[in-house]
Amino acid sequence: MTTGTIDIDAANQTAVARMMAARPQLTGLGRARDVVPGMRDNLLLHAGPPIAWERMSGPLRGAVIGALLYEGLAADEAGAVALVEKGEIDFAPCHHHATVGPMAGVTSASMQVYVVEDAVHGHRTFSNLNEGYGKVLRYGAYSPEVLDRLRFLNTTVAPVLAAALDRAGGLDLRALLAEALHMGDEGHNRNKAGSILFLKLLAPHIARVAPDGDTAGDVLRYLGDNALAVLNPVMAACKAMADAAHGVEGSTVVSTMARNGTDFGIRVSGLGDRWFTAPAMVPDGLYFPGFSSADANPDIGDSTITETAGIGAFAMAAAPAIVTFIGGSPKDAVTATLEMYEITVAEHAHFTIPGLGFRGTPVGIDLRQVVELGVTPRVNTGIAHRLAGVGQVGAGLVRPPLAVFEEALVAFAERYGF
Amino acid sequence: MTTGTIDIDAANQTAVARMMAARPQLTGLGRARDVVPGMRDNLLLHAGPPIAWERMSGPLRGAVIGALLYEGLAADEAGAVALVEKGEIDFAPCHHHATVGPMAGVTSASMQVYVVEDAVHGHRTFSNLNEGYGKVLRYGAYSPEVLDRLRFLNTTVAPVLAAALDRAGGLDLRALLAEALHMGDEGHNRNKAGSILFLKLLAPHIARVAPDGDTAGDVLRYLGDNALAVLNPVMAACKAMADAAHGVEGSTVVSTMARNGTDFGIRVSGLGDRWFTAPAMVPDGLYFPGFSSADANPDIGDSTITETAGIGAFAMAAAPAIVTFIGGSPKDAVTATLEMYEITVAEHAHFTIPGLGFRGTPVGIDLRQVVELGVTPRVNTGIAHRLAGVGQVGAGLVRPPLAVFEEALVAFAERYGF
Repeated sequence: MTTGTIDIDAANQTAVARMMAARPQLTGLGRARDVVPGMRDNLLLHAGPPIAWERMSGPLRGAVIGALLYEGLAADEAGAVALVEKGEIDFAPCHHHATVGPMAGVTSASMQVYVVEDAVHGHRTFSNLNEGYGKVLRYGAYSPEVLDRLRFLNTTVAPVLAAALDRAGGLDLRALLAEALHMGDEGHNRNKAGSILFLKLLAPHIARVAPDGDTAGDVLRYLGDNALAVLNPVMAACKAMADAAHGVEGSTVVSTMARNGTDFGIRVSGLGDRWFTAPAMVPDGLYFPGFSSADANPDIGDSTITETAGIGAFAMAAAPAIVTFIGGSPKDAVTATLEMYEITVAEHAHFTIPGLGFRGTPVGIDLRQVVELGVTPRVNTGIAHRLAGVGQVGAGLVRPPLAVFEEALVAFAERYGF
Repeated sequence: MTTGTIDIDAANQTAVARMMAARPQLTGLGRARDVVPGMRDNLLLHAGPPIAWERMSGPLRGAVIGALLYEGLAADEAGAVALVEKGEIDFAPCHHHATVGPMAGVTSASMQVYVVEDAVHGHRTFSNLNEGYGKVLRYGAYSPEVLDRLRFLNTTVAPVLAAALDRAGGLDLRALLAEALHMGDEGHNRNKAGSILFLKLLAPHIARVAPDGDTAGDVLRYLGDNALAVLNPVMAACKAMADAAHGVEGSTVVSTMARNGTDFGIRVSGLGDRWFTAPAMVPDGLYFPGFSSADANPDIGDSTITETAGIGAFAMAAAPAIVTFIGGSPKDAVTATLEMYEITVAEHAHFTIPGLGFRGTPVGIDLRQVVELGVTPRVNTGIAHRLAGVGQVGAGLVRPPLAVFEEALVAFAERYGF
């Protein structure tokens, strides 16, 4: 389709070709304060589009409180809330600082983050360390054991991983993901294979660089016991891929999808840094014993960057076993992927699905096709409790509101004059 | 079907129920001389049914020579051959000593073996350490680097693995296999996921028990770089499962399938320890660069114990990515599994295939169905060069000769009088 002087199809092919050409490497870790552009001590990054404290959902508020306690900026919950209400804390989307975080995504200045570099396009992206399961900051919990866990990750795990990565000469995350998709992962909610591939690649180095065998054992157990250990570097890799596709004049390819627990927001390659937002939906899924959809917070987290880059729910046909975790049948998993071909502009050159005859995953969401067909992207996700301090209550599937795509398409028409 | 006083169907259900009830645990390692029943210094165990030196194929002869060099019983190839020709070395199938070995399967007295225990039926089974790729004894290579590698495995790796397993309290191989089948493995020729699950479970212990970080690093690299690392314990686990099904009066379930590179042999649950053999076939598959089917040895190895226990080619629908290694299309992988339901008596209670809606793998090969339908079991396999000293030349698919099943069915009819 050529509109006036722009060829949208060609622009979209350029955008998706750039996305697939990106080759993100995990090169190290560093303190957010030292490595994340624009990071400062009174700034908290959060998942999703911009949001003020007043509109933040329970789990995001809980994570903000936890981060302020962790940073020593507040002594207790009341102190943290008072600090925020006095306006002493600034908030910004992770995405505005080249960062992505799962669920609440709250990242503060002294937290260690993974550093991912795409030499092809010169991008550097970041993500914090995955905390594992149970009571964790990213689901809005902030009790003492949550903070102890964060200290363990930042002071014990991160330095060993940084030294191991340095010794390994970095790690090719696109290759890891490609392999994980051949091992039953979809890369968002199922990262079982990817996480143990990560462990496998780093283990020999961890054993050599750790200060002692017990510390090496603790780090290896952290990686091995957490089937989401690799999610955060994978998300940073997906952000590097999506960023490569951003800013192509005339492209309707979606380059960001992210949720803050209140709003679902997208950005579009040809529409600059403007967010299009609408209220986030509550996921459909399986709940942990004792919880139901009445406990669920609306959709939250930057992890939709995986679907934006052509994996996650888009690659679900590669991961039939995921249905034990999110509900549905293996057939539904195949259907999900097949449906996503309808709204994407390419089949991925590097991410392939053995069960579909090694067909490339659907990649490059086209705003136009979403609106025209009324088919919104599928997203696999964890489900947070709607109250601060509780944590994860389940996992399932969700879709963004169609309204954000409609609004973006209107803006696109206005911007490009047709 | 009830024949005279025996109910074959009921006997087969008993046999397969015992196979599925087995719960093999990897409990440790030990020297073959100390742990394998009947092992002695001048005895070499080999894969497949019984065979004399005169009829041994190139790769089996090569492995015999290598083992005699490794044991210090001969100084060079000529000395090894002379020793054998003087009749100073005894040969016996691994299977006669509760052991299984991939490819040539040659196991000698001082080699370390994995110890697998099935407490349910009181069986102990054994398998040597997997050597990885390239020039290796199991494919009939015996150059100095092959022997160095064996020394490294036996003196460096085995003691650390033994201490790590001890510290871990053993490892549930049935659970590991069940998980690996959900991660794209079929458990015979594709053990990528299983091997890194093995690494994951042992890594924290390895780091703690190894004499130093470098040794821990070496052992972790050995496990991580070898996508077949877990094959040998898996084979011992499959033997424990198959042994549990053996010796059921009136059962036509196949309880052993094994090849020595010259003959393919089977044993049957209701027919005691008698082997039924016929010439082994040459596999169909993909060859490494520079090799073709003209270089291929006939089918060799005890690893068909995996298919006997309901995994391997029988579970190939779980492992569509395997076709990159053995040839064919992902659809063929599904077809292979579906065909095996025709000749088996049950669907596995513990090994399930997500892509087939979590259907249990076909398990318990019924001699009668094989002969009646003319459908022989499918087998995934590596392909050895036909000459001693070369090594692996490819991987592919093969089937046993129908004649062994026909002969066994005749024997069954004679034995049970119908």
